[in-house]
Amino acid sequence: MIRLLYFPTLNGHKVAIALEEMGLPYEVEIVDILKGEQDAVAFRAVNPNGKIPALVDGDVRVFESAAILQYLGRKTGRFYPADEGVRTQVDSWLFWQMAGLGPMSGQLNWFTRAAQHPDREPAETSLPIHRFRKETERLFAVLEKALEDRDYLCGDYSIADMCVWPWIEKYPDNGGGLDAHPAIADWHARIAERPAVQRALDVGADVIAAYQNKAS
Amino acid sequence: MIRLLYFPTLNGHKVAIALEEMGLPYEVEIVDILKGEQDAVAFRAVNPNGKIPALVDGDVRVFESAAILQYLGRKTGRFYPADEGVRTQVDSWLFWQMAGLGPMSGQLNWFTRAAQHPDREPAETSLPIHRFRKETERLFAVLEKALEDRDYLCGDYSIADMCVWPWIEKYPDNGGGLDAHPAIADWHARIAERPAVQRALDVGADVIAAYQNKAS
Repeated sequence: MIRLLYFPTLNGHKVAIALEEMGLPYEVEIVDILKGEQDAVAFRAVNPNGKIPALVDGDVRVFESAAILQYLGRKTGRFYPADEGVRTQVDSWLFWQMAGLGPMSGQLNWFTRAAQHPDREPAETSLPIHRFRKETERLFAVLEKALEDRDYLCGDYSIADMCVWPWIEKYPDNGGGLDAHPAIADWHARIAERPAVQRALDVGADVIAAYQNKAS
Repeated sequence: MIRLLYFPTLNGHKVAIALEEMGLPYEVEIVDILKGEQDAVAFRAVNPNGKIPALVDGDVRVFESAAILQYLGRKTGRFYPADEGVRTQVDSWLFWQMAGLGPMSGQLNWFTRAAQHPDREPAETSLPIHRFRKETERLFAVLEKALEDRDYLCGDYSIADMCVWPWIEKYPDNGGGLDAHPAIADWHARIAERPAVQRALDVGADVIAAYQNKAS
């Protein structure tokens, strides 16, 4: 059976969504990144880069969330059209999320949090915050325009939508908010109501709840 | 014929390398990003994100450099094994470069250049420079370990090597230099001597030379 090496983060959610949408049986192995379990030798054998999610399926080992989405799309033939005219569009948007929206919105989060540290002078974080906010807003504008005339990024619902959606779901305000982006807002709502997406967001939620109970 | 929408940058080089290695006929259309030509409507129709490289092949339009590598690999069946055990490794490393090494080393470049501006206080750039240097060094260590016991990232020379190599070639010092990373250094030299790689680095070199002549 497919083993999903997992922690409930945005990038983890992408893969849980794909597994649920595709109806694949899988077992979840929590890799607790708050305890540093991603540094364990056994995990590094699957992902030498030491980040979740990763996936093992028989002899196949995959790391990087969008590489896993492509693999699952090929394995099932679902949400990943084989026609090159569409497949290349899906791939382009996967890389757009991984190389663009993810790093830019993610760095904005990091520097915004760093700015909240009491020892931090505002001058230390204002330039990167400005830069990454501006770039994330640009990327939201690109996404808004792409979604203006269609329901999903590449025609039918695909792994490209599964890849981008969690980053919009969790950090809509990084790019200017959903009110300012009606096409993104509609697309977001359309995907949010899918039962498979709702099931996926629950995967590993108990781990987070246990931490929250301990903290309170 | 394949149309490569191109400017001689690191991400452009990746695709030129693949086209040369695969022996595919292609025509280069320079999209002069120093003149803002990536904002032209015709270019945006191929890449709504407004970045080079992009590629058109009949009805197929692809953007994001590694998505283009995957497409060319599928088209030719070369440097991109169809066996899932290998293909998933190639894909994992493609995304590792695009989501990791590229953004981290690239942001280090950006903030290092920003720090050189005469109006800039050191405090404005020291935190991001520290952060992106540390992360790029971590990524170099991951790559060094991966290459310790093999000649190429995924067994035989593949599009994964073509994707990572230009970022090592151009900015080796961002991650601590090649002297400190003997496995990366050997791998780098092995690829640098390939005739196709040397031809690829010349693609568009005349455009840069023209700018340099104008400036001098």
